[in-house]
Amino acid sequence: MSQKGQKQGKSGNQGNQGKAHEQAIAKRSEDYPQWYQDVIRFGELAEPAKVVKGCMVIKPHGYAIWEKIQRDLDGRFKDTGHKNAYFPLLVPMSFITKEAEHVEGFAPELAVVTRAGGAELEEPYVIRPTSETIIGHFFAKWIASHRDLPLKINQWANVMRWELRTRMFLRTTEFLWQEGHTAHANHEEAMQEVLQMLEVYAQFAEEVLAVPVIRGIKTASERFAGALETFCIEAMMQDGKALQSGTSHDLGQNFGKAFDVKFQNEAGDLEYVWQSSWGVSTRLIGGLVMTHSDDDGLILPPRVAPIHAVIIPIFRTEEQRVEVMAACERIKAALHEVDIAPPKARYRDFLEVEIDARDMRPGAKFYEWERRGVPIRIELGPKDLEKGVVCVKMRTGSDAKEFVPEAEFLATVSERLLDYQALLLTRARERLAAGTVKLDTWEQFEQTFAGDESKFAWCHWDGTAETEAKIKEKTKVTIRCVPLAGQGPDPAPGTCIYSGKPSAQRVLMAKAY
Amino acid sequence: MSQKGQKQGKSGNQGNQGKAHEQAIAKRSEDYPQWYQDVIRFGELAEPAKVVKGCMVIKPHGYAIWEKIQRDLDGRFKDTGHKNAYFPLLVPMSFITKEAEHVEGFAPELAVVTRAGGAELEEPYVIRPTSETIIGHFFAKWIASHRDLPLKINQWANVMRWELRTRMFLRTTEFLWQEGHTAHANHEEAMQEVLQMLEVYAQFAEEVLAVPVIRGIKTASERFAGALETFCIEAMMQDGKALQSGTSHDLGQNFGKAFDVKFQNEAGDLEYVWQSSWGVSTRLIGGLVMTHSDDDGLILPPRVAPIHAVIIPIFRTEEQRVEVMAACERIKAALHEVDIAPPKARYRDFLEVEIDARDMRPGAKFYEWERRGVPIRIELGPKDLEKGVVCVKMRTGSDAKEFVPEAEFLATVSERLLDYQALLLTRARERLAAGTVKLDTWEQFEQTFAGDESKFAWCHWDGTAETEAKIKEKTKVTIRCVPLAGQGPDPAPGTCIYSGKPSAQRVLMAKAY
Repeated sequence: MSQKGQKQGKSGNQGNQGKAHEQAIAKRSEDYPQWYQDVIRFGELAEPAKVVKGCMVIKPHGYAIWEKIQRDLDGRFKDTGHKNAYFPLLVPMSFITKEAEHVEGFAPELAVVTRAGGAELEEPYVIRPTSETIIGHFFAKWIASHRDLPLKINQWANVMRWELRTRMFLRTTEFLWQEGHTAHANHEEAMQEVLQMLEVYAQFAEEVLAVPVIRGIKTASERFAGALETFCIEAMMQDGKALQSGTSHDLGQNFGKAFDVKFQNEAGDLEYVWQSSWGVSTRLIGGLVMTHSDDDGLILPPRVAPIHAVIIPIFRTEEQRVEVMAACERIKAALHEVDIAPPKARYRDFLEVEIDARDMRPGAKFYEWERRGVPIRIELGPKDLEKGVVCVKMRTGSDAKEFVPEAEFLATVSERLLDYQALLLTRARERLAAGTVKLDTWEQFEQTFAGDESKFAWCHWDGTAETEAKIKEKTKVTIRCVPLAGQGPDPAPGTCIYSGKPSAQRVLMAKAY
Repeated sequence: MSQKGQKQGKSGNQGNQGKAHEQAIAKRSEDYPQWYQDVIRFGELAEPAKVVKGCMVIKPHGYAIWEKIQRDLDGRFKDTGHKNAYFPLLVPMSFITKEAEHVEGFAPELAVVTRAGGAELEEPYVIRPTSETIIGHFFAKWIASHRDLPLKINQWANVMRWELRTRMFLRTTEFLWQEGHTAHANHEEAMQEVLQMLEVYAQFAEEVLAVPVIRGIKTASERFAGALETFCIEAMMQDGKALQSGTSHDLGQNFGKAFDVKFQNEAGDLEYVWQSSWGVSTRLIGGLVMTHSDDDGLILPPRVAPIHAVIIPIFRTEEQRVEVMAACERIKAALHEVDIAPPKARYRDFLEVEIDARDMRPGAKFYEWERRGVPIRIELGPKDLEKGVVCVKMRTGSDAKEFVPEAEFLATVSERLLDYQALLLTRARERLAAGTVKLDTWEQFEQTFAGDESKFAWCHWDGTAETEAKIKEKTKVTIRCVPLAGQGPDPAPGTCIYSGKPSAQRVLMAKAY
C-alpha cells in the first residue's frame, strides 16, 4: 500500500502496526488544546515544521482537504466573474509603507529578504503578508478607463506573517490562502462585491464544510489594516470560542490613493478606483477540525474528505482471503464510478476508497480509520458475501452498524454521504444554538466567561473602543462582529453590558482563536 | 464585459478600442526574440514585474493556461500513486550546505531572509530554490521501515532562483512549478519511478500541449546539482533551439546520506533510502508559445486554451442586434454544455465561450482574438441566422471560413477541437522532423550553427566534458541529451564530431534556451 509511507513512522503513532491505539487522543473535556493537536497529529493532517519558526508541513491527508476546499471555492469565484492571476512573492519594502495604516498593521510581522544572488540588495524585499500593495501597483498600470472596470482578480498563494504565538492551521507564520482583489468605478459597486464574496464564503462554509457561520462587521480595532470596513464570518468551535473564518474588506479609495490607481469616468474626469479584497486560508481546516471531530479523532464532511470509504476485509483461510479480496476490489471499483460533485461543478468527485488488507487485527484498523475521519467503514467477510450484504458503519461517533444488500448500498451511497454531510451541519447548528446566549448584566457576563471555554453572547455595547478594550482586558472576550441583518437578534436599543451607556443594538461577543 | 479590465489599458495595446491592430507583433523571421515577447504581451499572458527583479506577473489569460496544465498533470500524478503535500517556503541556510554538490549548484542563486518579526535572525533562511533539502529532513522523520516505502509526494509551489538573465516564462527569478519527491527501498525501484515520471511528462507534453519531445539523459555538466543522473524531455522551438521542458532526477542516496534518511530493510538492517525528484514549471507556457504561435500571435491547443471560442455578432439595425445577440447567447449556452475533458479526468472541461459585442469594427476584433489564440471564431449575422448556419474560422493561420449548419456545428464541435489539437501536434512533429539533421563533420557543424537559429543535430561525441565545453565555447551549442532507446538514431559507434576520438553513439546537440 503506497500510502504507508505517509504515516508517521518514527513519530511513533502509525509506523508500528497495531500500536496506534496505544497512544490516546486527549479528551475534549479534559484538555481541549491538546485534543486539537492530537486530532491533527493522529489524523495525519499536518505537523509543526520546528526547523522553520512557526511553520508547519501540511501532510497528504491534510493537503487533500485543502485541495477540495480550493477546487470548490475556485468554481464559486469563477461563477461570480473572477479570474485567477499570479503576482510576485516579494514586495519592495517601500510599497508596504505607502498606505499608513497598512504599514502600521503589518510592519511588525514582516520577513525581509536583504540578500540575493550573493549580494546585499539596495532595497530589501518583504515576503508578501498580503498583496494589496503589489497588486495596487499593477492595477495602476492596467486601469485607465471606466471600461477597464470592474477588474476582478483572485490569487491562490502562500503568504508570511511572523507571528509570535502560532498554532497549527489557525495561525502559522507561512500559510496558504486565496486573496481576491477587485477594483470598481464607485463605492456602491465595491460594496456589492464585498458583500457578495462574504456570502460566497458563508455558503461555502455551510454547504461544503458543514460549518454554520455568523456574518457581521468587525469593530475598528479588529479591522484589516488599511480598510474602511471589514466584514467577516465567525464560526463557533466546540469549546464555544469563535474562529474568524473569512474576511471581506471594503478598502474604499485608500489603496487607490496610495498607488495612484485612477480611471477616467464616463464624464471624462479622473477618479481613484474603489477596491475590495477578501480571503480565506488553510485556517479553515483548523475550523473544520474543531467543528466536527470528537474524542475518537477527525470527523470530515464528505465534500472535503480525502477518502470517502475504507473497506476492511475479514477472513481466516487463504480461500476466504481470495474470495473476500476479490469482493473488496469489486466494491472499490464500483464506488469509484460514483461522482458526488454538485451538478454544475468544474470538477468530478469520484469516491475515493481504500482497502486495508494489512496483517493486523480489525479493531486496530477501525481505530486508525476513525482517527483519520473516513466517513464510511465497510467490513466484509465470508458470511457477508454469502448473504450478499456489506456491513456499513458511519463515522458518527455511534457504534451502530448496518447490514445492507450490496446492490442497495451501491445505489444509495451518494445519498448516504450527502445525508451524512447534512447530519454534520445539523449537529454544528445545534451546537451553535445551544452555545449562544443573550446576556444583560455584567455579573452574568463575568460568570459566563469565567472558565476557559466560551459562549457566543449577544450583548449591548456602547460603541466605544475604550469599552471594547476594557472588556477584553478583564475577560479576554472580544467583539466578534456587529451582525448583518438576520444574523443576530433584531436590532433594538439597550444599555451597554459594561458601561451602562446607551447601545444601538446587540453585538456578538466571545473568546476567540 | 468583466474581462475588459484584464486588458492592458495604460500599456496601450488593448485599452483603446480599435487601436489594438495598430501595434504589430514582430515577425519571427525578422526578430525572433522580440516576436516571443510580443506574442506574450499581446496575448496578455504575462508582463515583467520590473519592481521585483526578474519576476513577472502572470495575467489571467496566462494563469488560466497554467491552471489547465496543473489539473491535467495533477491527475496523472495521482493516477501513478502520488499524493500532494506542502512544505515550508523557507529553508534553514544550513540545510542547503548539507549536500556538497547541491550547495555548489544553488548557492549563487539564493534569496536570503535575514530579518523577521522586527529582529535579525540567528540563522538566515533561504527561499526554496527547490525542496530536496527540507523534504529530506521530513522524510527522515517519516520513514523508519521498508513498510513506509515507497513514499511518493508531490508539491505545487513557488520557488526562487536569483538568475542574472531572465526571460518571461523561460527563466524568471520566481516561478511556479511542481516538484515530485519520492523515496524507495532500492535503486531499481527509484529508477523505475524516475523513468515513469519522465514518461508522464512526455505524454502530457504531446497529448495536452501538442509539443513533441525527445527523451534523454543529461551529460554530467547539465545534471541537477546533487543527482546521480538527470533525465529530461527536450522540445524544439520554432527557431530550432531546444527547450528543456521537464526533468526527472535519480538522486541515488545522496540526499538520504545528507539528511540521514534511513529505513530498516526486510532483513532488519538499516539502509539509506534511494530518492527521485522531478519537476516541470511555468516554463512550459514559454515552450507552448514558441511551439505553436505564428506572426499573428498566440495559437493554443484546445486542451489548455482558456477560451475555446469567441462569437462575433454582426448587425446593423437594432432589430438585427436583438435577434443576433439572442442567437449568440443560445450558441454560447449550448457550447458551455459540451465537456471535452478526457473520459477519466478528475475535471470537467466545459467549453468557455466569449461573445464580443463591443462597439468596434469586426476586423479589429478578429485581430485581437487571433492574438489571444482562441481556437474557434464564430461570426454570426442576420444572413447566417436566416440560413441556419454559423460562419466558423479556426485559428490555424489560414483565412479559410466555413459555413456550417448550427446543429451540425454543435454536434461536432468536440471533434473539431480535438482535430485542431491533433493538427497542432502534427505540425509540431513535422517541424521537429524538418529541423533535425545528422551531422558528421566539424565543417557541417559550424555551417549549421553559424546563425542565430539552431537545428537538432545528432552527432557523435567522445563523451568528455572537455569536448562538450569546447563545442559550447566555439558555437554556443550544448549537448541536450543522450537519447533514450528509440528517441534518436539507433546507437552505433562513430568518431566525435569535434575531437575525432571514438564515440559510442550519437547525442542530441542544439542551441538552447
